Amino acid sequence: MSKQPLQVIKIGGKVIEDDALLAPILNAFTALEGHKLLVHGGGKRASEVSRALGIEPRMHQGRRITGAGDLEVATMVYAGLANKHIVGLLQARGCNALGLSGADAGVIRARKRPVGEVDFGFVGDIIAINDRMIEQFIEAGLTPVFCAITHDGQGQLLNTNADAIAAHVAMAMAPHYAVTLRYCFEKPGVLLDPNDDNSVIRRLSFADYQQHQRTGVVSAGMLPKLENGFAALRAGVQEVVISGATTLGKNQGTEIVI
Amino acid sequence: MSKQPLQVIKIGGKVIEDDALLAPILNAFTALEGHKLLVHGGGKRASEVSRALGIEPRMHQGRRITGAGDLEVATMVYAGLANKHIVGLLQARGCNALGLSGADAGVIRARKRPVGEVDFGFVGDIIAINDRMIEQFIEAGLTPVFCAITHDGQGQLLNTNADAIAAHVAMAMAPHYAVTLRYCFEKPGVLLDPNDDNSVIRRLSFADYQQHQRTGVVSAGMLPKLENGFAALRAGVQEVVISGATTLGKNQGTEIVI
Repeated sequence: MSKQPLQVIKIGGKVIEDDALLAPILNAFTALEGHKLLVHGGGKRASEVSRALGIEPRMHQGRRITGAGDLEVATMVYAGLANKHIVGLLQARGCNALGLSGADAGVIRARKRPVGEVDFGFVGDIIAINDRMIEQFIEAGLTPVFCAITHDGQGQLLNTNADAIAAHVAMAMAPHYAVTLRYCFEKPGVLLDPNDDNSVIRRLSFADYQQHQRTGVVSAGMLPKLENGFAALRAGVQEVVISGATTLGKNQGTEIVI
Repeated sequence: MSKQPLQVIKIGGKVIEDDALLAPILNAFTALEGHKLLVHGGGKRASEVSRALGIEPRMHQGRRITGAGDLEVATMVYAGLANKHIVGLLQARGCNALGLSGADAGVIRARKRPVGEVDFGFVGDIIAINDRMIEQFIEAGLTPVFCAITHDGQGQLLNTNADAIAAHVAMAMAPHYAVTLRYCFEKPGVLLDPNDDNSVIRRLSFADYQQHQRTGVVSAGMLPKLENGFAALRAGVQEVVISGATTLGKNQGTEIVI
């Protein structure tokens, strides 16, 4: 018996906090046929709220450190404001969305990143996805909507990269469904020339990726999506696409292949 | 066939934001046998966050007006910070908690309170509970944890009194389960003398309540709990108790009867 399709869609960036951009994307998401789920990032609102609360962002070599205050703000903005706003808008479109942090129904367990040279704080690396529970939600007609908050199973919430959540959920669901993973972001796909939106690479193999990486074609911001995407393909996800948020539901963007 | 028991527990007040108070309550909640669900208020953290964000509380005759900024903060603090914190702590205790706003899986629909002499803003009065969906969650072994945010089904989130949520959920589940509704708060129950914690009224009938109300024995803060409690009894909830949060799981507090 062939598996039913499941589309795992990640949206992030400024579309999260601009209803004019978000509305058409949620229309397109709602119109997707068959099983689907959404993973969303948090946008820049968390930084604004942090500053208002007097929490100064701390960085180490361009990477953010998540202190206790930052984690509280991330929990407020990602799991509260952004997640419930998106869920409410999807409900209005007839999509029976269920907002989830990793703690809810124990769907995503992570562990606090071990302290090496740097203590990144309350950042979680995913160690387990409760695929059976997610499957139960999907089979009940629900559309899970994941934010970028997970937990360690011992009462500690953790901030986790939304691209990684999308990939791990896609991989965990691969035994149950024919999974497509789609990263939607500002650009229409992986670009050969970052200044030319018409230079989308339609099909990117791992060998091409490695070469583009050496020559610097692939920008730093794309690396996590691509690394997560290739890992997902190796773990049984059938299709991985990186595309513009506005082209969701259309056959556009960059398909990556191994 | 007799119905299975379901315990609907509302916790609120300062216990929400003080882990030293919250931990024993969540231990007692986890230890409750059989089906159960939790409804929580928000505590005072929302006011702090509002002030930090420059949103001044607006009141009308002692009642809070929920502006767009207040609603955002409520969504952040109730649905994000408080809800996920509680869910994470319950998961750590082996209780398979699922955090829910009213928008999630469309479990609670409300309508914005009509503008009369006063516009209370984004405050929602409950109009429908999706009892079948809540039943499905419970039968899947999950423990729903409701925050005080609902939605109107048209994309608008709304701030809704947590006491009312507890009562409406209890009433909606009464056809499916033998429901007990328990309001847990700072005091050990309804007190004959507000300054004497040993003056708990063990059993309060509607007639007694009306009399106490005339003589001023029942304080203003108790009225919503009692009104909601009597409404729940009239709608088929089997037992309503008002008790101290620390006595959860013990046979203490005030039982109200019709």
